[in-house]
Amino acid sequence: MAARNETVAVIGGGLVGCLAALGLARKGYPVTVFEMRGDPRNDVAKQGSLRSINLAVSDRGIRALKYVDEAMAYRVLEDIIPMTGRMIHDLAGNQESQQYGLYGEAINSIDRRQLNIRLLEECENINKELGKTMVDLRFHSKLDDLKMGEKVTIISNGESFQFDFIVGCDGAYSATRSKLQKHVRMNYKQEYIDTCYVELSIPAGPNGEFLIDANHLHIWPRHEFMLIALANHDRSFTSTFFGPWGLVEKNLDTGAKALEFFKSQFPDALKIIGHERIVSAFDNHPRGALMQVNCDPYHFSDKAILLGDAAHSMVPFYGQGMNCGFEDVRILLTLLDESSSGRSAAFEKYTELRKDDLKAILKLALDNYKEMSHKVVSPWFLLRKKVDALLCRTLGDRWLPLYTMVSFRGDIGYAEAIRREELHERILKKLEFGALAAVIFGLSRLVPLTVWDRVIKRLLN
Amino acid sequence: MAARNETVAVIGGGLVGCLAALGLARKGYPVTVFEMRGDPRNDVAKQGSLRSINLAVSDRGIRALKYVDEAMAYRVLEDIIPMTGRMIHDLAGNQESQQYGLYGEAINSIDRRQLNIRLLEECENINKELGKTMVDLRFHSKLDDLKMGEKVTIISNGESFQFDFIVGCDGAYSATRSKLQKHVRMNYKQEYIDTCYVELSIPAGPNGEFLIDANHLHIWPRHEFMLIALANHDRSFTSTFFGPWGLVEKNLDTGAKALEFFKSQFPDALKIIGHERIVSAFDNHPRGALMQVNCDPYHFSDKAILLGDAAHSMVPFYGQGMNCGFEDVRILLTLLDESSSGRSAAFEKYTELRKDDLKAILKLALDNYKEMSHKVVSPWFLLRKKVDALLCRTLGDRWLPLYTMVSFRGDIGYAEAIRREELHERILKKLEFGALAAVIFGLSRLVPLTVWDRVIKRLLN
Repeated sequence: MAARNETVAVIGGGLVGCLAALGLARKGYPVTVFEMRGDPRNDVAKQGSLRSINLAVSDRGIRALKYVDEAMAYRVLEDIIPMTGRMIHDLAGNQESQQYGLYGEAINSIDRRQLNIRLLEECENINKELGKTMVDLRFHSKLDDLKMGEKVTIISNGESFQFDFIVGCDGAYSATRSKLQKHVRMNYKQEYIDTCYVELSIPAGPNGEFLIDANHLHIWPRHEFMLIALANHDRSFTSTFFGPWGLVEKNLDTGAKALEFFKSQFPDALKIIGHERIVSAFDNHPRGALMQVNCDPYHFSDKAILLGDAAHSMVPFYGQGMNCGFEDVRILLTLLDESSSGRSAAFEKYTELRKDDLKAILKLALDNYKEMSHKVVSPWFLLRKKVDALLCRTLGDRWLPLYTMVSFRGDIGYAEAIRREELHERILKKLEFGALAAVIFGLSRLVPLTVWDRVIKRLLN
Repeated sequence: MAARNETVAVIGGGLVGCLAALGLARKGYPVTVFEMRGDPRNDVAKQGSLRSINLAVSDRGIRALKYVDEAMAYRVLEDIIPMTGRMIHDLAGNQESQQYGLYGEAINSIDRRQLNIRLLEECENINKELGKTMVDLRFHSKLDDLKMGEKVTIISNGESFQFDFIVGCDGAYSATRSKLQKHVRMNYKQEYIDTCYVELSIPAGPNGEFLIDANHLHIWPRHEFMLIALANHDRSFTSTFFGPWGLVEKNLDTGAKALEFFKSQFPDALKIIGHERIVSAFDNHPRGALMQVNCDPYHFSDKAILLGDAAHSMVPFYGQGMNCGFEDVRILLTLLDESSSGRSAAFEKYTELRKDDLKAILKLALDNYKEMSHKVVSPWFLLRKKVDALLCRTLGDRWLPLYTMVSFRGDIGYAEAIRREELHERILKKLEFGALAAVIFGLSRLVPLTVWDRVIKRLLN
C-alpha cells in the first residue's frame, strides 16, 4: 500500500460509506467518515430497526467486499443465510420452491444493522492493523455545509475541515447531493411508487427452530400486494408487507382491520407471526414509502462523487440496492487505480461508465415488484423459467437467464444484462412464430379448409 | 365580490405570484405576498436585468390577465410590441419574414421587469379600489420554514404567520416546493439541457429608431447555435445568444474570441450590436443555464399548491413560460370557483387536469430549440408550413397549425394541441404514401419496366 497525499471525507457511515472508507484506506488515502447519527454499536436497544428491510447480499456485493479485502469479506459475511430460491405460499398454505439459479447459486440473507456494525469494526481494525488512523469515524456529525475551492471545505457541528475530495454515501435523501447541485448542473429525478411497506417479524419456534425453511426467500404473492420473509441468524424472520397506499390507508389502518385482512389473505403466515404481533405492528409500525432516485452526473470535477443510494436509490424488489452500492465502490477504486490522467478523469469516466448500468438496475428493480407479487404464480413465467434453464444448460454462457446475470454474475453489467435479455426475448418471439407457423402448416395439410375457416373466424370474434 | 374567511399566502412576488395575488384578492381572499428580494420599483439601477430573457406574451397569458381583470390587462399590456412573425437572418445578411399566424396574429414582446412593476402597482391599486388591504406585499421576506397543521404556518425573518393555504410561485428553484416535499410524496424531475445563453443588446439607432424591424422576432439560426432579438419599448432590442456549453466555454470564453466568432457567424448582427458591446458582454455577462423542472402532484391536501416555474420550469424556446404560469392561475381560480366540494377537491382536480398539459408544453418548449435554430431554414419545414396554411384556410378549426394552437388558441390545452398535431402528421404520412403510390402507378404505365428496375436499384444503393 502506497501512502497518498490526498485526504478524503466520506459522508455517511452506512454500508456503502464504510466500504468506501475501507477501500480508500487500503489504497492509502487517509479517510474521515462523517455520520449524522450515533454509533450503532452503542445502541443495543435498537437491535433490528423497524424501517429497514432485510438485505440479500449476492455476487456483486461479495465481489466488491473481496476486492477491498478478501479476509475482511469472509469476516463480515460470517452469519449470512444462503437462500437458493423463492418459496411461494398460496392461499391454501401450499409451499412451492422456485430455485434462483441453475446450479444452486444463492443470494444471502443478512441483517443490515449487524453488517453495518461489522463494517464499522473493520474500520477500527484497519487502524490497528496499519498502526495509524487511516479511517477516522466521526458520529453525530451532520454535513451542514460544503464549500468548493482549491480544497473541499466541510462544515459540521460548527467546525470546518478540509479535504482533497469527498465521497457522498449519505443515502436517498443525501445532503451531499443537494449541496452539490449548487456547483454542478445536475439532472435529477425522484419518483415514488404507489407501494407502501410495513415491517413485521416471525419469531423463532418454541425450540429455537426456524418456523419455515431458512434457505428460501418466502413470498406470499397476492397480485396487488404481497408478504415476504427473510431468515435472521437468531432463527427469527424479518417479514415485510407490501401493498398500494390506498389499500393500506383504507383497509389496514388499524391492527384490528389488519388482523381480519391477514386471516383471509395470509392464514398460514398469520399462524406463525401470531395475532398479537400483527395487531401491534399495524397499530404501531410506521408506513414506509418507496422512492427511486437517479442523477447525472455523479461527480463534480475532481472534488466530489456520489455512491450508493445518494446517487441512485432503488426500490428493494431485486435485492440489488446494497449490492449495486458496493459495486459502485469497486468500480470507483478500480478507476482511481487505472487512471493515469488523474482523479478528475477517473470521476468523469465513472459517471460515463456507470450511467447506463444504474438506469438499468433501477428499471429492473421496479419491474421486479410485478414479478414477485404476481408473475411468480403465472404458468407463462414458470414455462419461461424452464425454457431458460433448458437453453442455458445447452448453451452455457451464451444463454444466461436474467436473474442469473443480475444476481450471480457481477462480471456482467446491469445494462448488458438487459440487452442480452431483450435479445433472448426477440429470439423466442421469432421461434414462437416459427413454431406457430409449423403447427399451422402441419394442420393445414391435415384439416380441411372449411374447418380452418371456422377456427379463424372464431378466433377473430 | 364575496368576502372570504380563508387567508392566503402567495410565496414569490414575480409575474405569476402577482397575478395569483390579484386573482385571489378579486375572489375575496385576503392575500399576503412574501417576496425574497427587494421591491423592484425602488431599484431604478437594475433597469433590464442581465439574466432575464425578454418575454413574449400571447393568447394564454392575455386570456388569464383578462380573466382576473379586463381593465387591468389593458393597463399592464400597454407597452407591448406585437411580433407577427420570425425574421430569419442568413449569413449573407438577407432577411426573410415567416409569419406566425395565418391572419396576422401576433405574440408580443414585453420587458419582464416592467411587467412585474406594473403588476405590483396593480396590487396597490386593488387595495385603493376596495378601500382595504386585500394584497399585503412583503419584500425581503424569504420563506425560512413551513409547518403544516390546522393552518399553514410560515416562518419568515424570525416571524411566524398563519394562513389557510399557500400558493407557491417562487420560481424554478422554489423553496416552497422543496419544503413541501417533506409533507407529500412528490415525484420530481429536473433536467439541464446542453445549452448556455448570454444576454446581449442592440441599441436604438442614432435618431432613436429601431435598427431592425420591431414587429418580428429576429433569429440568426446557425443550426448548433443561434442569436435572437426582441424589440423593447425604448427602441433597443434585447438579444440573446444560445449555444452548447462546450462551444461557449471553449470558443467564447473571452470577449476577444467572441468578437472573432461574431465576425464570421453574425456579421450583420455585429454591425448593429457594435464591437465593444460584444466584447464587454462576453467578458462580463454571466453564462446562463437552462433547466426543465416538473413535479407531481402540484398540491398538498387543501393546504398548498404550486404554480408557474415553481411547478414546471421550461426552456424559453416556445415563449410559453409566463403564458403557461398565467394560465395556471386562471385554471386554479376557475376550479376554486366551480368546486362545491371544497378546496381540497379543487386542488386535486388541478393536479389531475394540469399534469398532461404541463408535460406537453415542457416537451414542446424543448423541441422548439431545434425548430428555431435549425428547422426554420429547412425547405421541408417551409413546405409543411405552406401545407398547413393551405389546409387551415380550407378546413378552418379542423386543421390548426401547432404554433397557432399553442400561441393563439388558449382554449386548446397543450396536450390536446400535441394530440391534434400528431393526428395531422399521421394523415400527411398517409397522403404522402398515397401521392407516392399515385406517382408510381402513373409512371408504371408510362415507363418501361427495365427503366423502373434501374431507378429502384439506384435508390437502394
